[in-house]
Amino acid sequence: MMHRYRSHTCAALRKSDVGANVRISGWVHRVRDHGGVLFIDLRDHYGITQVVADPDSPAFKQAELVRGEWVIRIDGLVKARTEDTVNKNMATGEIELYAQEIEVLSAAKELPLPVFGEPDYPEDVRLKYRFLDLRRETLHKNIVKRTQVISAMRREMGNIGFTEYTTPILTASSPEGARDFLVPSRIHPGTFYALPQAPQQYKQLLMVAGFDRYFQIAPCFRDEDPRADRLPGEFYQLDLEMSFVEQEDVWNTMEPVIRDIFVEFADGKPVTETFPRIPYETAMRKYGSDKPDLRNPIEMQAVTEHFDGSGFKVFANMIASNPKVEVWAIPAKTGGSRAFCDRMNAWAQSQGQPGLGYIFWRKEGEKLEGAGPLAKNIGEDRTDAIRTQLGLDDGDACFFVAGDPAKFYKFAGEARTRAGEELNLVDRDRFECCWIVDFPFYEWLEEEKKIDFAHNPFSMPQGGMEALSGADPLSIKAFQYDMVCNGFEIASGSIRNQLPEVMVKAFELTGKSQAEVEEQFGGLYRAFQYGAPPHGGMAFGIDRIVMLLVGAKNLREISLFPMNQQAQDLLMGAPTPATPTQLRELAIRPIPPVKKD
Amino acid sequence: MMHRYRSHTCAALRKSDVGANVRISGWVHRVRDHGGVLFIDLRDHYGITQVVADPDSPAFKQAELVRGEWVIRIDGLVKARTEDTVNKNMATGEIELYAQEIEVLSAAKELPLPVFGEPDYPEDVRLKYRFLDLRRETLHKNIVKRTQVISAMRREMGNIGFTEYTTPILTASSPEGARDFLVPSRIHPGTFYALPQAPQQYKQLLMVAGFDRYFQIAPCFRDEDPRADRLPGEFYQLDLEMSFVEQEDVWNTMEPVIRDIFVEFADGKPVTETFPRIPYETAMRKYGSDKPDLRNPIEMQAVTEHFDGSGFKVFANMIASNPKVEVWAIPAKTGGSRAFCDRMNAWAQSQGQPGLGYIFWRKEGEKLEGAGPLAKNIGEDRTDAIRTQLGLDDGDACFFVAGDPAKFYKFAGEARTRAGEELNLVDRDRFECCWIVDFPFYEWLEEEKKIDFAHNPFSMPQGGMEALSGADPLSIKAFQYDMVCNGFEIASGSIRNQLPEVMVKAFELTGKSQAEVEEQFGGLYRAFQYGAPPHGGMAFGIDRIVMLLVGAKNLREISLFPMNQQAQDLLMGAPTPATPTQLRELAIRPIPPVKKD
Repeated sequence: MMHRYRSHTCAALRKSDVGANVRISGWVHRVRDHGGVLFIDLRDHYGITQVVADPDSPAFKQAELVRGEWVIRIDGLVKARTEDTVNKNMATGEIELYAQEIEVLSAAKELPLPVFGEPDYPEDVRLKYRFLDLRRETLHKNIVKRTQVISAMRREMGNIGFTEYTTPILTASSPEGARDFLVPSRIHPGTFYALPQAPQQYKQLLMVAGFDRYFQIAPCFRDEDPRADRLPGEFYQLDLEMSFVEQEDVWNTMEPVIRDIFVEFADGKPVTETFPRIPYETAMRKYGSDKPDLRNPIEMQAVTEHFDGSGFKVFANMIASNPKVEVWAIPAKTGGSRAFCDRMNAWAQSQGQPGLGYIFWRKEGEKLEGAGPLAKNIGEDRTDAIRTQLGLDDGDACFFVAGDPAKFYKFAGEARTRAGEELNLVDRDRFECCWIVDFPFYEWLEEEKKIDFAHNPFSMPQGGMEALSGADPLSIKAFQYDMVCNGFEIASGSIRNQLPEVMVKAFELTGKSQAEVEEQFGGLYRAFQYGAPPHGGMAFGIDRIVMLLVGAKNLREISLFPMNQQAQDLLMGAPTPATPTQLRELAIRPIPPVKKD
Repeated sequence: MMHRYRSHTCAALRKSDVGANVRISGWVHRVRDHGGVLFIDLRDHYGITQVVADPDSPAFKQAELVRGEWVIRIDGLVKARTEDTVNKNMATGEIELYAQEIEVLSAAKELPLPVFGEPDYPEDVRLKYRFLDLRRETLHKNIVKRTQVISAMRREMGNIGFTEYTTPILTASSPEGARDFLVPSRIHPGTFYALPQAPQQYKQLLMVAGFDRYFQIAPCFRDEDPRADRLPGEFYQLDLEMSFVEQEDVWNTMEPVIRDIFVEFADGKPVTETFPRIPYETAMRKYGSDKPDLRNPIEMQAVTEHFDGSGFKVFANMIASNPKVEVWAIPAKTGGSRAFCDRMNAWAQSQGQPGLGYIFWRKEGEKLEGAGPLAKNIGEDRTDAIRTQLGLDDGDACFFVAGDPAKFYKFAGEARTRAGEELNLVDRDRFECCWIVDFPFYEWLEEEKKIDFAHNPFSMPQGGMEALSGADPLSIKAFQYDMVCNGFEIASGSIRNQLPEVMVKAFELTGKSQAEVEEQFGGLYRAFQYGAPPHGGMAFGIDRIVMLLVGAKNLREISLFPMNQQAQDLLMGAPTPATPTQLRELAIRPIPPVKKD
């Protein structure tokens, strides 16, 4: 007996099925009328089958009725397409289904959002009718790819001996930086749970509890103001932690996992074979960023000596007056035209900079000559020394930024990016990954005139207690690392500070007492007193990785049911006012907004 | 170069490693002093290795220092154990490690909760020091098994073409029955998100969006009052949904998955080969429950006719006065002693029943005789007719419950359970699974004098619109089903009502208007207007399945970081008061408790 709804999916029928009586069900993708013969493209999750109903077909009357996105069942006879109508781009392109019976399983009203052809549509309509939006080919495929990436992560982590542990979602507020979502407790009026910003403390507790290799596809929650690159509410991390490891162990464990996943889903684009391990300090000097896009071949270099005491007085005076001052060069191969250099200069001014000094090189007869005002000021020898240091040649340019690198590195990095993009030096069709390592442990808070943790207080300082007792806390590096791909931070991690006395000392330098440590990290601090193994780990941003892999520019293109930028779920209608009963049970009262006259 | 912490795990060393210099790290499980020679059992996630330090060992001084649960690294030489000291119950039982160097990686204070030996300890201590509790062998193993069960679920679902989609956790309040956890919105003051009680609406929306076979290891949240069989806060379901299916498809899909998982983790206990499909009505009559424990062989039968007009006037009069009255028999093989029957009778009285009528059979010479007051009253022929109907014999008993089955079925089921347990008829070492099908669609609310959905409004009524328009709504069955194992409901599901007009009609009979349907199920109701495929699914309670598989009596024995029965996280300290800043940002104010004089 034939199945009530289908003997085959809409992607299943092949030439070998010709002559078979089959049944398929799905959505009417489109209906075309070719001289009185109706062609219905029937679509399901798996694919599309072309259905034909000519006026002789017993199903013709029904076929005339159906409209786009109706759900129908079709019984029919599989026929081979003629040579000239075979569609090689379609899995079912060698056959068509001659309809004998059509049953409408669910009609559709007029569509607020077309599915076929995926025309551009306003985002609020797409989110409100997400169930239609998700039928569209690109988004549907993106979502499927997302599930495949996550499934591959689970597979890879399992293969190398990691176990997925699920940590609580209703937990304690934690002072990790971002703002918590709170959940009022009904049983304990006046108190609140918090949704986890990350399972950081729990995964460390798992290590203290003797579980060795943890991972989790972990939901994380931060009540942040909307940002283009972050969805309101929840996001997912591939979170992991390992015991009895040093940072190299974490790197050597996770680099193959991530490379394999990129290779699996990169559609043939090249992926970095061995991820370079770049110290933070080096990254800042070469790329002006701890998230360098290594597809951009430009590497900056310090060229301070060539300007020291030179005829370019602006730079020379800066160097003479402040030992912190450096001059960084941004070499720009193929950028050697006055037009390009002037464009870069204008862009720098649009960024609030006084300008962007440059030299470009061109052949004057047999002679390679540095052009531009700077070259004139510093003279031929220095100009050529710079060119030689940077390996530049005829037709190339170089831009210069001077000052205290701590203040200009960001702009320098942006100038590097811009030069690389404008000159088309960036190969977009590849994935360039690297590690950024040796992050500073502390940073100086200028406003508060104190030091604080540069990243998070969970990391182990390199050198341990000895380093913390040394002269310059700002020189301490942390066993802390990021993974970066194409200019995006895709992961962050560290070896943790699991020694209570080192933890207390590390906090002490930021002005926090032992009591405060105990109060803020009670569970973890207590756990460290009872035999805590050395451990470390990291967390990968799944949304970002999927965006890179599918080439999406917007998080909503890779998320199933996202909220809008105002943190509203337009499909389900959230958030909404609570009922009086709910408020009474939770013993809370909304504070009415202050009226402004 | 040797790894900083270990060349092997504590479960790795074998006879073939004898002579090797190795390094292991882990927790000191226990230290024994055998005539001056110290034996340290070193434990990690993977196992235990016995370490020996005699007074000649360079590590002896350190070995004398270490205490239980310290984390240490040991370098040593692998030696074979002597024949008489080989431990065959231990993976590493053929070797021991002769310690040459010991490094303390993390000391432990005096333990508030011993790990070795797992002595009973108060629950609040176990929860506060969960990181120690989790090191204990039984709990550690339970948690690992839990992760394996979940991993197997993912594997099995993947193997049969299901895809894991993750649905939102910050979503809309839904009127599904239980109480929601609410999350105040900071960006929209006075409004709230809700945590999902189940991804019911989202998974149905996924079907409408054209994804065909969904599953999810789904976190669910219900703000219920504490109950022994439910952890406060969150729990996990294996949630799934399929398009273009009838209920048999769901059963045929999921039965092998669950059977395979039970077989994989049942430690050799038998698992039902083919799950019987028992109509709800039959289950109630045979077992007095829609969650029958089929390990109990007792099946009840109606024996009304044998009491109708009989000499046992109590039953005879009830039957005569009310056509609803039935007499159910609870046959109890091997229960044929006055002592047992009296015990059952006394138990029934302790349950608030007037008593429990019985007959038991014994040989008087060659003659099989029914004993007890009932037998006397109804006479030999009727007594023997009952015995024959129930297949009872010498040494067996039978109990009787009379009245309106709707009122006594629950007690009858409890009597069946009690008789089976008391007589040891229940084979505890097996897993007996079944389907309960054909649940009633509506139920009668006596207090409100109206009908309401017996389970949930998402199910399709059998017979569809026609049945809803018929005479007796209470006779309508739903395409709704449970899976039951050993007396516990482990799953529930249905074919969904995806036809808007049938949905409106179904609600109408419960007194709800179309406007109310739209308001309460807006997202879903709207979606059904735009081409919704027939679909259905179910959800399995993962916690319950794991409890059954590990034989745990308490949810806290299979949960990683559970809250206590007062919904408090004693480890992390939650819930807690919010800071004034948090309250101000969320625009809510806790209502102080009313003071009572």
